[in-house]
Amino acid sequence: MPPDTDPLPSWNDTGTRQAIVGFVEAVTRDGGDGHVPPAERVAVFDNDGTLWCEKPMPIQLDFILRRLAVMAEQDPSLRERQPWQAAYTRDLGWLGQVVTKHYQGDDRELPVLAAGVLQAFGGITVEDFEGQADAFLRDTQHPTLGRGYLACAYTPMVELLRYLEANGFANYIASGGGRDFMRPITQEVYGVPRDRVIGSSITLAWKPDGPGGRIVRKPELDVVDDGPAKPVRIWSRVGRRPILAAGNSNGDLPMLQFAEQPGRPGLRLLVMHDDPEREFDYVAGSERALEEAGARDWTVVSIKRDWATVFDPGWTGSGP
Amino acid sequence: MPPDTDPLPSWNDTGTRQAIVGFVEAVTRDGGDGHVPPAERVAVFDNDGTLWCEKPMPIQLDFILRRLAVMAEQDPSLRERQPWQAAYTRDLGWLGQVVTKHYQGDDRELPVLAAGVLQAFGGITVEDFEGQADAFLRDTQHPTLGRGYLACAYTPMVELLRYLEANGFANYIASGGGRDFMRPITQEVYGVPRDRVIGSSITLAWKPDGPGGRIVRKPELDVVDDGPAKPVRIWSRVGRRPILAAGNSNGDLPMLQFAEQPGRPGLRLLVMHDDPEREFDYVAGSERALEEAGARDWTVVSIKRDWATVFDPGWTGSGP
Repeated sequence: MPPDTDPLPSWNDTGTRQAIVGFVEAVTRDGGDGHVPPAERVAVFDNDGTLWCEKPMPIQLDFILRRLAVMAEQDPSLRERQPWQAAYTRDLGWLGQVVTKHYQGDDRELPVLAAGVLQAFGGITVEDFEGQADAFLRDTQHPTLGRGYLACAYTPMVELLRYLEANGFANYIASGGGRDFMRPITQEVYGVPRDRVIGSSITLAWKPDGPGGRIVRKPELDVVDDGPAKPVRIWSRVGRRPILAAGNSNGDLPMLQFAEQPGRPGLRLLVMHDDPEREFDYVAGSERALEEAGARDWTVVSIKRDWATVFDPGWTGSGP
Repeated sequence: MPPDTDPLPSWNDTGTRQAIVGFVEAVTRDGGDGHVPPAERVAVFDNDGTLWCEKPMPIQLDFILRRLAVMAEQDPSLRERQPWQAAYTRDLGWLGQVVTKHYQGDDRELPVLAAGVLQAFGGITVEDFEGQADAFLRDTQHPTLGRGYLACAYTPMVELLRYLEANGFANYIASGGGRDFMRPITQEVYGVPRDRVIGSSITLAWKPDGPGGRIVRKPELDVVDDGPAKPVRIWSRVGRRPILAAGNSNGDLPMLQFAEQPGRPGLRLLVMHDDPEREFDYVAGSERALEEAGARDWTVVSIKRDWATVFDPGWTGSGP
């Protein structure tokens, strides 16, 4: 393939790339055994750690911490209570272990964090929340990578999304992260329109006051879109079983398993974070997923081996 | 407009038709004051009584009753209990008053009906349920109209959906009826793909057994997509406020109100059933909606006055 028409220039020529291209060619080959009609070409992607960087902490957690710190700034009594205390003192150790324990299946400290998170944005309209998320994502730098958060998407995964779209796929984001947090930027960063963003949600309520009424956020969790909730949310939203799923952690296991149907092609991609030079090197929270990938013959994407480029090299550093 | 290019041939040339065409032209006129970018042209439609006939009872209720009757056939002890008794004896009076009371805001008897409904399809996979719904909709005749259920869609509304789609709109079905009941036929009947069907849902559960795992229906209500739930579900699924909403009953009021935003065009359509000759004549369950339509200057669609044709005249009667 001549380089100027290569749809995946940031992927090295490894078995992983060959598995992706072979799958797409099989699915789109007219009259072929593995042909799948365009309407049934559904691909689902986790976001944190799969489409963009999730270390040293998920980007949304930084968003929440800054809001909690502002709350503690305004109300000193909050500074003695978690999670405000951790946010106010930037005690990332406390927060990191809550997240790591969650991925290991231990959610005992999660309610403390969740209570703060829910209060941080309770009662505001969905439009106000979106405005805050949008401004944060555009104006904030990643703490160590030396680039803005919007430039923390993985270039090879963005290429993959575009390659799939050019081949008739509908791409969905099925993330444990907040649906309404991601929506303002998914079209621009990933080419995924907002109606194809599935993710965790808080309870919303309709208020009929004023012209058009308002939808406001209640301080109450609706669905945590992780683990077994992922296939259920995907079915509920799409009404189809995906033929491609990409994830990186234990919480993506059911979604990856769901993208399998006897008698039709399927591709399961598991992103492995093994590149301390260009990104991060960690397995915490992905141990079972990596085991299953080996046992079930899923395709492991090694950042170190399979990606020629990790982040957009054209990012100029002018502005975040 | 020459008749062969008229996108709305089943609509009489009344103020209603003029309101629709005027709205679409304003929204699509480049550089016009009311121009709305294609990505923001979201239209939402109730289904029962708005896109297809809901009398003498909602089509899905017939589906459920037949299943309940089969259960009572197999288990005589069920024949003394509601709702199986009503289903087994075809006592439509009992059922009709439950539905009418619901529209009037009285849900005291609804749990009895709901319990039976939930048991009727509990424990089966989403694919099995879809197969049953699909077969029922294709094989069953409307009790009085002399046509199959799939031919009970309103021709003018199907034309409206296509006209909107041709003008860059994304059409969604936001129905109180069951999402998974409608999905197998919405593309064929309305041109609305399954991922744009929003509706009531029962709780689903992921079972990891077997290749690909399964999603099964639990005998438990998830969301009744009616009243204030409609704007919330629309926002959750679409991530946008619609600019057009069409409904016919009190349960559609919040959705109709939601399709209004200061400074941008909006169209609210309320279908009024006033044609005993060609369809049905009733206001029960729509009283408040009709009042609000008058007070808020929404567009009332009179079946008798505004529609030249109600149902597909090309339906041959061969097959259901």
